[in-house]
Amino acid sequence: MARSPESTDSRAMGTVAMRWHGDSLELLDQRLLPAEEHWITVEGAAGVAQCIRDMVVRGAPAIGISAAYGVALAARHAGSGEWQAEIRQAMDELAESRPTAVNLFWALQRMGKVFEACTTPAEAVRHLADEAVKIHDEDLSANLTMAEHALSVMAPASPISVLTHCNTGALATGGYGTALGVIRHLHEKSLLGRVFADETRPWLQGSRLTAWELARDGIPVTLNADGAAASILAGGEVKWVVVGADRITANGDVANKIGTYSLAVLAKHHDVRFMVVAPSSTVDMSLESGGDIPIEEREGTEVREIRGIPLAPAGVDVHNPVFDVTPAKLIDAIVTEKGVVLNPDPVRMRGLFC
Amino acid sequence: MARSPESTDSRAMGTVAMRWHGDSLELLDQRLLPAEEHWITVEGAAGVAQCIRDMVVRGAPAIGISAAYGVALAARHAGSGEWQAEIRQAMDELAESRPTAVNLFWALQRMGKVFEACTTPAEAVRHLADEAVKIHDEDLSANLTMAEHALSVMAPASPISVLTHCNTGALATGGYGTALGVIRHLHEKSLLGRVFADETRPWLQGSRLTAWELARDGIPVTLNADGAAASILAGGEVKWVVVGADRITANGDVANKIGTYSLAVLAKHHDVRFMVVAPSSTVDMSLESGGDIPIEEREGTEVREIRGIPLAPAGVDVHNPVFDVTPAKLIDAIVTEKGVVLNPDPVRMRGLFC
Repeated sequence: MARSPESTDSRAMGTVAMRWHGDSLELLDQRLLPAEEHWITVEGAAGVAQCIRDMVVRGAPAIGISAAYGVALAARHAGSGEWQAEIRQAMDELAESRPTAVNLFWALQRMGKVFEACTTPAEAVRHLADEAVKIHDEDLSANLTMAEHALSVMAPASPISVLTHCNTGALATGGYGTALGVIRHLHEKSLLGRVFADETRPWLQGSRLTAWELARDGIPVTLNADGAAASILAGGEVKWVVVGADRITANGDVANKIGTYSLAVLAKHHDVRFMVVAPSSTVDMSLESGGDIPIEEREGTEVREIRGIPLAPAGVDVHNPVFDVTPAKLIDAIVTEKGVVLNPDPVRMRGLFC
Repeated sequence: MARSPESTDSRAMGTVAMRWHGDSLELLDQRLLPAEEHWITVEGAAGVAQCIRDMVVRGAPAIGISAAYGVALAARHAGSGEWQAEIRQAMDELAESRPTAVNLFWALQRMGKVFEACTTPAEAVRHLADEAVKIHDEDLSANLTMAEHALSVMAPASPISVLTHCNTGALATGGYGTALGVIRHLHEKSLLGRVFADETRPWLQGSRLTAWELARDGIPVTLNADGAAASILAGGEVKWVVVGADRITANGDVANKIGTYSLAVLAKHHDVRFMVVAPSSTVDMSLESGGDIPIEEREGTEVREIRGIPLAPAGVDVHNPVFDVTPAKLIDAIVTEKGVVLNPDPVRMRGLFC
């Protein structure tokens, strides 16, 4: 049962990050947006791992789904002899592509379970492809459910303005989006005032991806430098800061794009509500708190250069953590497809996720 | 008494933003740093106003000094007939170049007083040039004094790490720097652990100017995206956030580069001290509070593009305020050459500035 690109397209309002063709995976090269829409065809797990590492595809749920497709491709290309070892090796390689988003490991674990039950290469090809498509479908479906949950929490009587960070839309997920899905849903219900989008340095997911995706889908957006968020929140127009997550621990701490923690502190200071929207595949109940989450640090060139143009003296020391951790006490609501945790703490988290 | 470029050079540790030659002003084109060191020779007030507007020269004190030299150039080029009208027009034009930094208006007011006392064009040429050089000299001298005051307030027993925003160094002032002067002075006394420099979007003063200036002067610096400041402060290494100012009102509120207010909230949240360093020419006792300060909003292209490369979809709406206001209650110390105001409020401000 290969997913047709059309079905994803219509449900995701026109924007998708990936297209599955059964024997190959196409990934939209998010490094080149908004200047260029270039699709990369990937035919093996190593190629998928490379695309995840190089951020051709990014966003916690999209990374998980891509990795699942990567395992399906590995099954397809495995020889008839050492097929099990080859698939296992592919899963290992995919697991090493990026460290912070737990959706990657969650997807590989799900694929691993299906894989362990396969007794022939042909079974592996069929069942692993089916499971990857299922993971993709479920993610899209979870996003639609989360958007409903989020609106129940916000309960806006009239249009509200929100501020978001990074890209959590169709480009970051199986379609529709997490935090950006909530924003889409507000727009669909005519309940969206204005969306402020942090440009999200250093990778500029906000300006390159969120603004592009929203403009494409006809949702008005106002872009701002990350440093302007504080004065925007002080202005009083924004009622909610809405963000995604890369990993949520058992106490409700949230790892997300660098700069998220800053917004949470600012939201608390200005009495603005702070909402995290993520599928339950982002929840890692095996980690007690955010301090246990491995935080990826990427190359200093991401800060020192843009498309090869130097923005700083060559070789200057750079501190470039890609994620930060927002403590649960700064979060008003964690919204998942399984339900909502208000004012998260270990007891409330266990109530929903154990 | 024309300032020799050499004297500025040595006192400013090698880096200067401007060179006065008596009949012309050279400005280092800060838009091209760090890729290129290009000096622009300006021979009239209109050229200086243009350079301020286009941010060839920036930084509140440097804007004030440049404007003063602009008036001196106007006197030099004024005809013998309508010389007074011509100088007055030059002052008006300079006053309209940028709205937020009060040092501009302060410098023009000082130049205006000298101008009013001049009775011949020759007197104007001589006295206005002398006054501009005096403003420049006093600014440099104020920076050295402020650095001493700041160290008394910090009183570090051993090396401390600090975080700074924007560029407040020799490039932003008459030499040495305000907040960056304090950092220089810590370094000279072997009391500097590490300087974290916010890259300071959208204009990237941190990466383009501060990192360049510190590297040039042999002071180690670590660059970070603005959004990473929160997790850096959470890490506990940084003891002080040190910034400059564009205008300080009678109650101790501070307008400074966009993103400063964010840092002040974050510093308070993390129990990190917050210091503003600015010459008394930045203090505007005529305004009651920060809400009265005109905040410049600049072109959206500053956020949408870097050197003509699109970072966002063409024409996307941008909110680009260049400054924000930090309320006095978030500030631990305002350091000027006249002295220090701890925990600023209207009474303490009046004590030093009236």
